[in-house]
Amino acid sequence: MDHANKDLPERIDPEIAHRVWIENIQPAVDAGRFPIKRCVGEDVRVTADIFADGHDLLAAVLRYRPVSAAAWQETHMKPQVNDIWEGHFCVERLDPYEYTIEAWVDHFASWQDEVLKKHQAGQDIQSELLEGAALIEAAAERALEPDRSWLTKIALLLKSKKAQAERVERGLSADLTALMNRYPDRSQSSRYHQALQINVERIRARYGAWYEMFPRSTGSSPSQSGTFRDAAKQLSYVAGMGFDVVYLPPIHPIGHTYRKGPNNTLVAGPDDPGSPWAIGGPEGGHKAIHPELGTMDDFDFFVETASHLGLEVALDIAFQCSPDHPYVKEHPEWFRHRPDGSIKYAENPPKKYQDIYPLNFENPAWESLWSELKDVIVFWASRGVRIFRVDNPHTKPLNFWGWTIDEVRRSFPDTVFLSEAFTRPKIMHALAKVGFSQSYTYFTWRNTKREIIEYVTTLTRSGVREFFRPNFFANTPDILPEFLQFGGRPAFLSRLVLAATLGASYGIYSGYELCENEATPGTEEYHQSEKYQIRHRDWNRPESLREYITLVNRVRRENPALHSNDGLDFYPVDNEQLLFFGKMTSSLDNIILVVINLDPHHVHDGWVELPLEKLRIGASEVYQVHDLIGEGRYLWQGRRNYVRLDPAESPAQIYRLRRRVRTERDFEYFM
Amino acid sequence: MDHANKDLPERIDPEIAHRVWIENIQPAVDAGRFPIKRCVGEDVRVTADIFADGHDLLAAVLRYRPVSAAAWQETHMKPQVNDIWEGHFCVERLDPYEYTIEAWVDHFASWQDEVLKKHQAGQDIQSELLEGAALIEAAAERALEPDRSWLTKIALLLKSKKAQAERVERGLSADLTALMNRYPDRSQSSRYHQALQINVERIRARYGAWYEMFPRSTGSSPSQSGTFRDAAKQLSYVAGMGFDVVYLPPIHPIGHTYRKGPNNTLVAGPDDPGSPWAIGGPEGGHKAIHPELGTMDDFDFFVETASHLGLEVALDIAFQCSPDHPYVKEHPEWFRHRPDGSIKYAENPPKKYQDIYPLNFENPAWESLWSELKDVIVFWASRGVRIFRVDNPHTKPLNFWGWTIDEVRRSFPDTVFLSEAFTRPKIMHALAKVGFSQSYTYFTWRNTKREIIEYVTTLTRSGVREFFRPNFFANTPDILPEFLQFGGRPAFLSRLVLAATLGASYGIYSGYELCENEATPGTEEYHQSEKYQIRHRDWNRPESLREYITLVNRVRRENPALHSNDGLDFYPVDNEQLLFFGKMTSSLDNIILVVINLDPHHVHDGWVELPLEKLRIGASEVYQVHDLIGEGRYLWQGRRNYVRLDPAESPAQIYRLRRRVRTERDFEYFM
Repeated sequence: MDHANKDLPERIDPEIAHRVWIENIQPAVDAGRFPIKRCVGEDVRVTADIFADGHDLLAAVLRYRPVSAAAWQETHMKPQVNDIWEGHFCVERLDPYEYTIEAWVDHFASWQDEVLKKHQAGQDIQSELLEGAALIEAAAERALEPDRSWLTKIALLLKSKKAQAERVERGLSADLTALMNRYPDRSQSSRYHQALQINVERIRARYGAWYEMFPRSTGSSPSQSGTFRDAAKQLSYVAGMGFDVVYLPPIHPIGHTYRKGPNNTLVAGPDDPGSPWAIGGPEGGHKAIHPELGTMDDFDFFVETASHLGLEVALDIAFQCSPDHPYVKEHPEWFRHRPDGSIKYAENPPKKYQDIYPLNFENPAWESLWSELKDVIVFWASRGVRIFRVDNPHTKPLNFWGWTIDEVRRSFPDTVFLSEAFTRPKIMHALAKVGFSQSYTYFTWRNTKREIIEYVTTLTRSGVREFFRPNFFANTPDILPEFLQFGGRPAFLSRLVLAATLGASYGIYSGYELCENEATPGTEEYHQSEKYQIRHRDWNRPESLREYITLVNRVRRENPALHSNDGLDFYPVDNEQLLFFGKMTSSLDNIILVVINLDPHHVHDGWVELPLEKLRIGASEVYQVHDLIGEGRYLWQGRRNYVRLDPAESPAQIYRLRRRVRTERDFEYFM
Repeated sequence: MDHANKDLPERIDPEIAHRVWIENIQPAVDAGRFPIKRCVGEDVRVTADIFADGHDLLAAVLRYRPVSAAAWQETHMKPQVNDIWEGHFCVERLDPYEYTIEAWVDHFASWQDEVLKKHQAGQDIQSELLEGAALIEAAAERALEPDRSWLTKIALLLKSKKAQAERVERGLSADLTALMNRYPDRSQSSRYHQALQINVERIRARYGAWYEMFPRSTGSSPSQSGTFRDAAKQLSYVAGMGFDVVYLPPIHPIGHTYRKGPNNTLVAGPDDPGSPWAIGGPEGGHKAIHPELGTMDDFDFFVETASHLGLEVALDIAFQCSPDHPYVKEHPEWFRHRPDGSIKYAENPPKKYQDIYPLNFENPAWESLWSELKDVIVFWASRGVRIFRVDNPHTKPLNFWGWTIDEVRRSFPDTVFLSEAFTRPKIMHALAKVGFSQSYTYFTWRNTKREIIEYVTTLTRSGVREFFRPNFFANTPDILPEFLQFGGRPAFLSRLVLAATLGASYGIYSGYELCENEATPGTEEYHQSEKYQIRHRDWNRPESLREYITLVNRVRRENPALHSNDGLDFYPVDNEQLLFFGKMTSSLDNIILVVINLDPHHVHDGWVELPLEKLRIGASEVYQVHDLIGEGRYLWQGRRNYVRLDPAESPAQIYRLRRRVRTERDFEYFM
């Protein structure tokens, strides 16, 4: 019989003879098609299914590096149940990272396992000891001195005539294991077929309190536009409330053609300021400053003032043009001209934007358009702005954003992009996948306990968390939610606490602190919306929430649990109007519990239920919860505890759990 | 201001300017890393998330082809909720297929949508009509005659001075829509970044009743091996019971060195036949036939006889060698030699297989080993065998199987591979992913209602169903489950019905029909296992389940719902010992309902609950269920109905639901 390979087909790729399989690496977005997101200093916990045929033991390493680095770093993975392995590393640099896995059959560990079992069963393992010696000799070949000599010596011992017990003990010894692990045979190792990407950003991409304001409303007279110099004076008020980011609607020249009047009327009077989103006039377009706001110097002064106060400026990026924008004349090819020569204005039925021309991304000169728009962002980044809130990104091609964000980050890796996309969920997710740091959400319309739990759980507990970071805005110039329209001051308080504690990033639009709640009837539009007119407010009104907001923002700053959404969990409470949840750091050294009365009109009470095991609190242990809002301190015991919230006082309590309660054992004479 | 592209970076790939996104194509195994499985004639229902920026309407086609065909076929996909699109096609050929998606912005449909809304709102849309005419003229450019002339004519009408209503009506007309859809502008279409693969097999990969038998036990004398001629006589008995596949343990020469005696004892007597899995002797190895079974001609006769009876022969592939196998001398490089020169026998602690040498797949000559083992399967396939039950595939490299199965199917595309892997779930799944048609399962050890529902639901309702097809064996020569050991005849009946109705593929090992239930105490091994000795049975014993099995297999054949696991669902019944489930064809023209008493010792009754909406039965409608086992017919009404099962009679009822019950309306004088 001849078993020679008479007609062996083309040579088989030697890689496929490697025995270990690596599957299902997590986290991964769309199986690695898009990067996961992390911030500098965060941990990346990676799991994968790793296995091979037969019964051999395996070894696996998680490999990772900043993509700009040539060398991979490695950390050993550990097997968990069901062939799942786990490892982790920290992203330390503001640089994209990548990670992958390599695994191999650990013949020496398998040998140790076999020898231990057989020796304990009293078998003669002379032959096995010789096999072990051969493995050690092979490792010695790969080793450097003095390890090589050590290994050779041990191999000799295993081959010697000494007692089996002594040789086994040496073969299983920890120092030999460590030595062998230094020189594994990875010639037959398997590598995962791809490296997965990580988009690493600075902390502000994950955590921050935003305040939106119109600089033109900061002047001393309601009939005249405020300037950046006026707005700069307002900044200490904003910083004083503890905000991190001050976000401005577009600051560019506003068109005159079809300018909108107050309340979005079609005809503007001669003194009506128009909508800041109708960008562009004879004075310039997206790289210019509206003359009524001042000069570029004034803008720089504003940015500097903010910076001194610990505030960062975020600009609005709205890629659309008033009919007077220079692009309309200079680049007619960027607009869609109809057969009758006109350019169609923007519509989002039933809304009409007669004062705005959309850009036509399907034009043959799309490359020059992409490049120019990218330059707009680079222009402002060069002036020190590193946060951009992008208006209606879902009406521009998704790949345009992917390309633009990558290009901007190539020069300014610390740039944060917030997506203002109130559109279908898959499109919002896709915007996050292409690179937006964070996104507006449907939080605005989630009011009941069930709605909030369902929605926020999806955001923070599903695969979505790996690429989509929510920014919970409690209101915007476009949206005065119904609940705020009729819920009065308690509604403003509870939505503030909800936004600020559920979301590591959250925001309000100015006027919120004054509980402004007058809408155009039947809509969520503000009456006398600041989008179309200058508003003049008395910030010192006694009913202002200023102090409450200051307190909430201080609580946020002082409690690292609130700097992330990772540790969020909802817990039971036996009242449908009470919402109870917790956030904690992974070390459990900061545990925040929040209870909120969702009904702005009535007092509610109930029994909250704490996850004692998770909090590592004994069933009968006494612990203290300290309400950081009302400053009350309560001693709680066991799983279920009583709460009562009067919306007229404060509809929310934010407890810091202080584990240690003093007992007689702390008393100096005890014992 | 100069917007020229001063420093435009390297040219952007024009593909990325295309606006439509395609994501999350389902089905897909590991995001397309492995093929999904289908059988010839099955439908492939494909969904994907398809969307673009803005508000335009989209069009999408599902593209598919046998990989051997050059041309793609296309079928239009339809939008469902939440940007999910759906399409389907049928795999008609025994050939691997692939599928992918292409989608584009449908400017004409978007235009129709806009025009309809504006016209209905009473707006003047002169300009819009000109836009439509331009779209139609562009399509005319792409069109062939006479369509081109038609389109040109319609464009002229839209541009004419006729009444707006008339022009709108023409622009929205169905015939124009059809014409336009014939010439879509796909120049900016997006294609999914990969083509997903389908492994297409014949129906036997999905559906079949298996019967396992040892040919050597079919002789006339218990002390002498039966031959293939004897075994051929037994085939009418097997075919008579309605089985589709007769599966034989290895038929090759059995080694003498360390041959096992009865009950796996270490020393065999001179007349002990040894285990068929200790393959190879001086007479040959995996391509030879054990002389005691006869000649190659006898084997061919056996295969032919089976074929005449409608039975297909499945062979066992056990890639391991007795110490006497020719490979051991001819290819010492394929075995792992220890430093002392010996070859280690196979072990699976605590089991020891002194009569078996494993092959060493890590040897440097692995390519010649792979090639030879593949040749073994090709050898038997060339003799007409197209079903292989692979012994312990999980102790050979996963990629070896992938390569081997692909190679064999290249010549014999109708080859079915059954994986005998009772190992960890991920490895069993990986074997299915590399190409095994079907697999042994943990069904053997799932006895309680909850266990069965949980396990079978995972197999048939999760992503696992796309690549893993279960074959429910009720017993094997290796496993006499505990439940059969103590449950008596009712246990054999209920496990048979469970296997045969839950699994489109199922099997029993001979002796099951005689309720053989004597185990080596404390194990699941058969006492006097046929693995080590010849068994002689009286197939005509009156207590034989032969007729019951014949009935169950007939029910299987006559009811297409039982030919697949796709339509399986479990329904409620208010007794923990009763299991109730249904299987139905997608057209609902065959609906099977099964109720089984899992307790072999006691009568149980309860109320089953039917999913009336799914079955399209009205809440008060009367329908008939016809017990295909006991032949009882029952009129049921409404959701909840009563059942009672006495295990002493039959622990199971298999109902065919017959929707139509005659009423007075069917009587000739009615009305």
